[in-house]
Amino acid sequence: MQSIEKEAAIAQEYLAKVSVEAERKFDVYLPSEKDRPCRLHEAMRYSMFAGGKRLRPALVKSTFDMFGGKGESVWLAMSALEMLHTFSLIHDDLPCVDNDDFRRGKLTSHKKFGEATAVMAGDALCVLAFELMGKTGNAQAIEILAHLLGTFGMIGGEMTDIECEGKPVDLEIVDYIHYHKTAALIEASLQVGAMLAGASDADIQKIRNYGRSIGLAFQIVDDILDIVSTTEELGKDAGSDVEKGKATYPALVGLDKSREKAKELYEESIRALDGLSCDTGILRAIAAFIITRVN
Amino acid sequence: MQSIEKEAAIAQEYLAKVSVEAERKFDVYLPSEKDRPCRLHEAMRYSMFAGGKRLRPALVKSTFDMFGGKGESVWLAMSALEMLHTFSLIHDDLPCVDNDDFRRGKLTSHKKFGEATAVMAGDALCVLAFELMGKTGNAQAIEILAHLLGTFGMIGGEMTDIECEGKPVDLEIVDYIHYHKTAALIEASLQVGAMLAGASDADIQKIRNYGRSIGLAFQIVDDILDIVSTTEELGKDAGSDVEKGKATYPALVGLDKSREKAKELYEESIRALDGLSCDTGILRAIAAFIITRVN
Repeated sequence: MQSIEKEAAIAQEYLAKVSVEAERKFDVYLPSEKDRPCRLHEAMRYSMFAGGKRLRPALVKSTFDMFGGKGESVWLAMSALEMLHTFSLIHDDLPCVDNDDFRRGKLTSHKKFGEATAVMAGDALCVLAFELMGKTGNAQAIEILAHLLGTFGMIGGEMTDIECEGKPVDLEIVDYIHYHKTAALIEASLQVGAMLAGASDADIQKIRNYGRSIGLAFQIVDDILDIVSTTEELGKDAGSDVEKGKATYPALVGLDKSREKAKELYEESIRALDGLSCDTGILRAIAAFIITRVN
Repeated sequence: MQSIEKEAAIAQEYLAKVSVEAERKFDVYLPSEKDRPCRLHEAMRYSMFAGGKRLRPALVKSTFDMFGGKGESVWLAMSALEMLHTFSLIHDDLPCVDNDDFRRGKLTSHKKFGEATAVMAGDALCVLAFELMGKTGNAQAIEILAHLLGTFGMIGGEMTDIECEGKPVDLEIVDYIHYHKTAALIEASLQVGAMLAGASDADIQKIRNYGRSIGLAFQIVDDILDIVSTTEELGKDAGSDVEKGKATYPALVGLDKSREKAKELYEESIRALDGLSCDTGILRAIAAFIITRVN
């Protein structure tokens, strides 16, 4: 087995390559700034092209390819997943929610376009994502994606995250928040990719377990970086979790134990891929990237 | 032909009957307040059960039944359409958008639950609507619904409505706003009902034309009522359009010409139903109700 750093480098190369292709598709699927309502379309594009790792599209594509998927539907789903992620970021940054001024080193949507436009831009990206998913022709994938996005998934995690700010919480709540806020959409990306490729239920279950582990690991690493990195490195306000009294692993168990937990989750994610007969190289590399990343 | 008042009475009876059945389904499909995140689920239910005519579910059902649709999918779509309508109302009422304190005689979502919860409740209703639509198994209906809901439909109309507040506008813009803000989702309700019932493309086109006419009529009547009714009659702040400098028909052409336009649109909607071989009685009655309603 290669060193974890080498694995991570493979993932970074893969992410860079997929980003370029995915962004070309975003440009096709996103409405033009020349079409009415122009400023809303501008706001949607601003946030979609504000950078980011494009992790979710890469997870859709790697899973789709791994299971031998063919055709254009993967690009629709990749774009949909990035739109849903962006929708959640825009609404989370709003003054009434996390009140963040910067995201990925750029002004947040409401700082740039005003609050009303930011609310609508988030809404419009969410709705456009489902339009693209409708074009894949796979209604079952839409049902599962929406479920993992809703109050029993991502939105449930975000809401609980907001409600728990500044309150004493236990590890059960932190796990609930992290799993729902972050892991659910990562799991959804993998599952949608697998479903569009026609993977078996048993294989989808393995992929979901992998997603749950890397999703939790991703959020723990995020919370560690919020403490140990600078605002410049992160492209968003560092130290904001502590300031807001956010429920995080480092806040509850400290940095060292949080790093240990991320490592354990990494190992769990690799084990979850056991028994898949296809080439899981990229997914293993992405897991390594997730726990070694620095921004 | 019966008098328009008699037709309207038939529609009212139909709406009342469908409301009862539809609300029973909303209760089944909406997550329980006992499940986490409890307060978010409470907020979703609060707005969904705050009253309302349930016009969109009734349009889904009447069209589905008219084209001989069978099965449970209609209830999923009816609930989805009401959730999408409610999502749009919650976000439109936000302080950064229309800043309304009352809706249907009750406090708006952000007044009752706070802004963050109102943003998330809207988001969650939108996402749940697509989960229910996913359960219908009809991906094409999802694509079309999302298109009519997005920036080339409802959200596009809302955004332009906000942008045009207090600015001089012409009838072309007012028509654009009304068609998109209101008629698009009404058209979508009809089209989804027809698609789930397996109607032909030619019949769906007739139904869409009907929807476009009654949708525009609906918004013009709304704007007339905003001027001639009291806050008590409306259950929301009367006179708020004038106060906000909203782009409306009455503001542009006066009350009398607005009433004439609504009447013309009513007649157009009835003509659009010509050539359908099924029983269009309920749709004709609903059109009569729309232009004679007083709240």
